[in-house]
Amino acid sequence: MAKINKNFKKLQKNYLFIDIAKRTKAFIEANPGVTVLRLGIGDTTEPIPPVVIAGMHAGVEKLSKRETYTGYDDNLGNPRLKQAFVDWYQQRGVSLDTSEICIGDGGKPDSGNIQSIFSPKNIIAVSDPVYPVYVDSNVIAGRTGTYANGKYKGVVYMPLTSKNNFIPKVPDVKVDLIYLCSPNNPTGGVMSKKDLERFVKYARKNKSVIIFDSAYSMYIKDSDLPRSIYEIEGAKSCAIEISSFSKWAGFTGVRLGWTIVPKELVSEDSEKGELHAMWFRRQTTMFNGASNIAQEGGIAVLSKQGQKQCQQLVDYYMGNAQLIRNTFLKLGFTVYGGENAPYIWLKTPTGYSSWEFFDKVLSETHIVGTPGSGFGSCGEGYFRLSAFGKRENIEKAVKSIQKNLKL
Amino acid sequence: MAKINKNFKKLQKNYLFIDIAKRTKAFIEANPGVTVLRLGIGDTTEPIPPVVIAGMHAGVEKLSKRETYTGYDDNLGNPRLKQAFVDWYQQRGVSLDTSEICIGDGGKPDSGNIQSIFSPKNIIAVSDPVYPVYVDSNVIAGRTGTYANGKYKGVVYMPLTSKNNFIPKVPDVKVDLIYLCSPNNPTGGVMSKKDLERFVKYARKNKSVIIFDSAYSMYIKDSDLPRSIYEIEGAKSCAIEISSFSKWAGFTGVRLGWTIVPKELVSEDSEKGELHAMWFRRQTTMFNGASNIAQEGGIAVLSKQGQKQCQQLVDYYMGNAQLIRNTFLKLGFTVYGGENAPYIWLKTPTGYSSWEFFDKVLSETHIVGTPGSGFGSCGEGYFRLSAFGKRENIEKAVKSIQKNLKL
Repeated sequence: MAKINKNFKKLQKNYLFIDIAKRTKAFIEANPGVTVLRLGIGDTTEPIPPVVIAGMHAGVEKLSKRETYTGYDDNLGNPRLKQAFVDWYQQRGVSLDTSEICIGDGGKPDSGNIQSIFSPKNIIAVSDPVYPVYVDSNVIAGRTGTYANGKYKGVVYMPLTSKNNFIPKVPDVKVDLIYLCSPNNPTGGVMSKKDLERFVKYARKNKSVIIFDSAYSMYIKDSDLPRSIYEIEGAKSCAIEISSFSKWAGFTGVRLGWTIVPKELVSEDSEKGELHAMWFRRQTTMFNGASNIAQEGGIAVLSKQGQKQCQQLVDYYMGNAQLIRNTFLKLGFTVYGGENAPYIWLKTPTGYSSWEFFDKVLSETHIVGTPGSGFGSCGEGYFRLSAFGKRENIEKAVKSIQKNLKL
Repeated sequence: MAKINKNFKKLQKNYLFIDIAKRTKAFIEANPGVTVLRLGIGDTTEPIPPVVIAGMHAGVEKLSKRETYTGYDDNLGNPRLKQAFVDWYQQRGVSLDTSEICIGDGGKPDSGNIQSIFSPKNIIAVSDPVYPVYVDSNVIAGRTGTYANGKYKGVVYMPLTSKNNFIPKVPDVKVDLIYLCSPNNPTGGVMSKKDLERFVKYARKNKSVIIFDSAYSMYIKDSDLPRSIYEIEGAKSCAIEISSFSKWAGFTGVRLGWTIVPKELVSEDSEKGELHAMWFRRQTTMFNGASNIAQEGGIAVLSKQGQKQCQQLVDYYMGNAQLIRNTFLKLGFTVYGGENAPYIWLKTPTGYSSWEFFDKVLSETHIVGTPGSGFGSCGEGYFRLSAFGKRENIEKAVKSIQKNLKL
């Protein structure tokens, strides 16, 4: 008699984007003819750069000919792609071995599945607000209790507030797995080297493991800010890095990412190399590699020309970010993010909850944003705007804000 | 203090293909200049058909233009691909709703991850010999005891032997999850409608769930044999179907598959629709859809012309199968499989274990096959040959067998 995994019952329905869709729909129905501008979701809108497109066409073409056709990928990653990563990391002083890089199909699956190599009894720490995948994957795996008042029992939440400039503080209790996302989704905050050093120190002392999500690292402009946790000394013994081509190269639909589980990484009960081997075993058992066409695209991204063209793509979205940021700053808002990250995190005006401000912005300016409270209780009183969008829509949006938002 | 998932320690190292590689390497080193023919691994070698290549090029091209670019896939599958599946299943009298089809990145990930929606205490039944992913994914999730004498404690094994014509018998104890693979890897056996009816009856009676892997269904020539478990009445209430484009369209490296969790499916402790919703939740939480380029290829596979061209690809490999099968039959071997499946399952000559026959075939004919014992203890005394390969190599192989194999 089959039984279900009861942990699924603990999961909160992800009402956030459903509620946003409902309210938006109701507004459109009540105001026929109005065009709504969507700055809510972090989905890419701009085409993939030419050199990457050419790489993927070549990848498809290879599969059409007997001489160049390839089947299964036995190494969890095209060796040329892995070598390109080694060279790319080396530019920032990070030395890796090709075998430490595991090519995956994106940041969501890798950050969701990585927990499976750890004990179901491990205690996790996440920021509040948080990217929901870190929490939900651990709920499914049974690492949390039930949900109440915006929190799961048994999870240690690290508040992100204006007081700490949206940088998580090292937990004052012992935790086993620590999820960090920098640049942060949703707040747009970026951790400095000093901030990361504190976490690396904590993790090494407590034999905790940091799961570092650097999906937005290419949006960092400030050269002093770390793009990889391995820029911090000692991080290889305590940190896993997960990253993605999604926002860097417009690969949200193409699906390509990478995860580094260093051979030096240890836990309380494992020697060097064991966690590395476990992730490799997990992936060879339950995954069969990213699409070879996507990987050819990834190789093109990492070429000189590819990096240049993808940087232009990033710059385009960051141009959007600047437009949004400056507009709200001029109107006297307190604005976070948007400088080294594609998310703008606004403080709502006094007296407005996140959802009240959502309704105000929608009705007055016809713009759909995301209520900060949807990402966790510390997000209450904040509002996220995404810089992913077509420039003409962002321009329309900022004009509408300037003209129509009642202050 | 992070701790590991100790279940990984129970996993047996997958020595099979490592051992094969080692012995092959040793043979080549001892016999310089000899060309070895590899018929061991089930990896595709022939190019992807033209109409599918055109579909994938068009998919890449879409991503290059602002007007046609798309990002995240919100529905776990391109709606056109899902509709094409509904039409395709309907041809065999199977009615599905598009929402019941979840597009994934291949049979291995889906058959590995599906167990996560079930209780960690569920008892699984698998065939012996078996495709290792079904077992290993459950070992990692903690549904088994330790390994001894070729078996994991707590797992119910259904022997596949010449006595039952390599068709699993319904367990005589109560089990919760039943993995069936038909056409079978490695034996090449195919379950009839009556065989499947027995399992459906058992599952409905015991509220068990069947996980039916039909990755090789397109290799079935006999029109009386079921290609989908949903051809059996009542299967929707007790069976999940997992399948793949890998062997059908040469997508081993492209990565595309599909999983059907019907809304009618129930378990002991869940109502209709709950398991369906749980799989959807698992996938939206920890997966972000298959590559949109691969999905455009999938749509092309399901077109009239695509189906025709992919059938030619299947026929090519089945031509290989016939060559291998007939060669061994003429030599007086007892041969199974290879008629409705791309695997030939040979009984080794009297006195030869699987590995002894492996060594004999390698040294005498320079052909690499797979010892049946590597797939489970009931595989001892058998030898698998794969029909995936270039025709010229298969022809060389059968000539060498005819000429050099000492009987």
